[in-house]
Amino acid sequence: MTETAPTAPTAHAAATSGGFGERLSAAIRAHGPLCVGIDPHSYLLADWGLTDDAAGALELGLRVVEAAAGRAGIVKPQVAFFERFGSAGYAALERVLAAARAAGLVVIADVKRGDVGTSVEAYGQAWLTPGAPLEADAMTISAFQGVGSLAAPIRLAAESGKGLFVLAATSNPEAAVIQRSRDADSGRSVARAIIDDVTKQNAAIGETIGPIGVVLGATLDLSTFGIDLTSPVEPALPVLAPGFGHQGARYENAAEIYGELARMLVVSESRSILSAGPSGLTDTIASRAAEVRSALV
Amino acid sequence: MTETAPTAPTAHAAATSGGFGERLSAAIRAHGPLCVGIDPHSYLLADWGLTDDAAGALELGLRVVEAAAGRAGIVKPQVAFFERFGSAGYAALERVLAAARAAGLVVIADVKRGDVGTSVEAYGQAWLTPGAPLEADAMTISAFQGVGSLAAPIRLAAESGKGLFVLAATSNPEAAVIQRSRDADSGRSVARAIIDDVTKQNAAIGETIGPIGVVLGATLDLSTFGIDLTSPVEPALPVLAPGFGHQGARYENAAEIYGELARMLVVSESRSILSAGPSGLTDTIASRAAEVRSALV
Repeated sequence: MTETAPTAPTAHAAATSGGFGERLSAAIRAHGPLCVGIDPHSYLLADWGLTDDAAGALELGLRVVEAAAGRAGIVKPQVAFFERFGSAGYAALERVLAAARAAGLVVIADVKRGDVGTSVEAYGQAWLTPGAPLEADAMTISAFQGVGSLAAPIRLAAESGKGLFVLAATSNPEAAVIQRSRDADSGRSVARAIIDDVTKQNAAIGETIGPIGVVLGATLDLSTFGIDLTSPVEPALPVLAPGFGHQGARYENAAEIYGELARMLVVSESRSILSAGPSGLTDTIASRAAEVRSALV
Repeated sequence: MTETAPTAPTAHAAATSGGFGERLSAAIRAHGPLCVGIDPHSYLLADWGLTDDAAGALELGLRVVEAAAGRAGIVKPQVAFFERFGSAGYAALERVLAAARAAGLVVIADVKRGDVGTSVEAYGQAWLTPGAPLEADAMTISAFQGVGSLAAPIRLAAESGKGLFVLAATSNPEAAVIQRSRDADSGRSVARAIIDDVTKQNAAIGETIGPIGVVLGATLDLSTFGIDLTSPVEPALPVLAPGFGHQGARYENAAEIYGELARMLVVSESRSILSAGPSGLTDTIASRAAEVRSALV
């Protein structure tokens, strides 16, 4: 593979603000672990009185950024809802990402990309390259082709002070048949193997908080996935945790749900916040952030 | 979920040209199973004397479409290489997709998207909705969250005369640890369960050739994934087959590699064709298409 350097790189992010784990930890210390979803669904745009097009998605995105700035530390745009509108949707997303980063928010692009070789490297370049039009602080990624297939984006993340969240055990029930399946040789489940492999990658990178995290749904009994909740993980493993709020998991149970993996939780809420509508948004984010913080920190 | 109708739908594709399986079969009858990759890697753009930006990707894409039209039946843009350039890359991709469809090529958007609920539905809307800016004939998709998580795009595909290719067993060696893992209850491997579940979905849709296919690498010993190669599959299952050409699999072994799954092969080649450069492209596509056709049909 003779891939040339990524487009227009600068060492800005890595040089000025430390690794992703450190920035994530600072955001959580300042505002708690709440991560506000930016999900311009058709029905939410209608509820907000916005058009179901790129202009509506831009408006929703910018309002969420404005309301989250100073009240929450982390936002997570769901890229699927922008992708519906093609290049116009991506132009809107670029403005939302830039506004969020300019406001000091940690931005996790929820893209769940995955591929091999130079293709997955290109996805990493798209979202993790400092100066790229779609630059975020981290992206979600799928290891269906093996954690080994993610070597290029893992390297890009480590070099650029960026992060990844690798899907491991997701909260939808149809996922269990795949994610609980076990390797005949090691006996490890798919989800367990991903956590182990990510932890190895973090150890090789050598920061106190690993830049590579995992996605683990809060509504699951993680022990049925063969996941070890009792052993401390070093370096600390960021865990993106959907499933609290409307999906039913309770914050007071977080320590029980995640055990030793609860050290660096990022709690994602979307609908429970965005359903407040534009007028109630600021207050809702402030109160949800405070609630999550007091329940978890 | 109160998702509203997809953006600007028309019944055009479904009403005028039959289901995806039928169109795919017609393309293969006319030109053989060769699928030409549209992969604007950095290094390929340099080799072609093009700039490593959206304009270069557009130029490469349009030249491949022009050279493929009338010589091959199917093209597959690798979206990662366009995504590097953000909205400008997507604007280029929209023009490439439109040119390819206008030329009568069957277009498989290689996006490997995956998610749940309204998010994966939005990905389906982005690529499968007639009239959408990124409309293709089919998209690749990942079932890491279970084939059940893909219900919405499967429904969209069936309703719009579009197709999906679900990753099942991919040719990179790091994938085996996940894709060969087995479910404790059924004993089925991840790859086998995906093929079985896709076949059930195709049976429910009820067309002679299923609109939902799978990706199965040609360099693999599929029996080690627990995949049954000896039983006929009904409806016929389209199989997107990377791994021939530069990756080493030989066309004369296709029947042995795929067994009963060889009925509706789509053979994907990218580098082996694009490395011919712009001047040699037309002849290379014509000769590769003829070779693949005579070896496989």
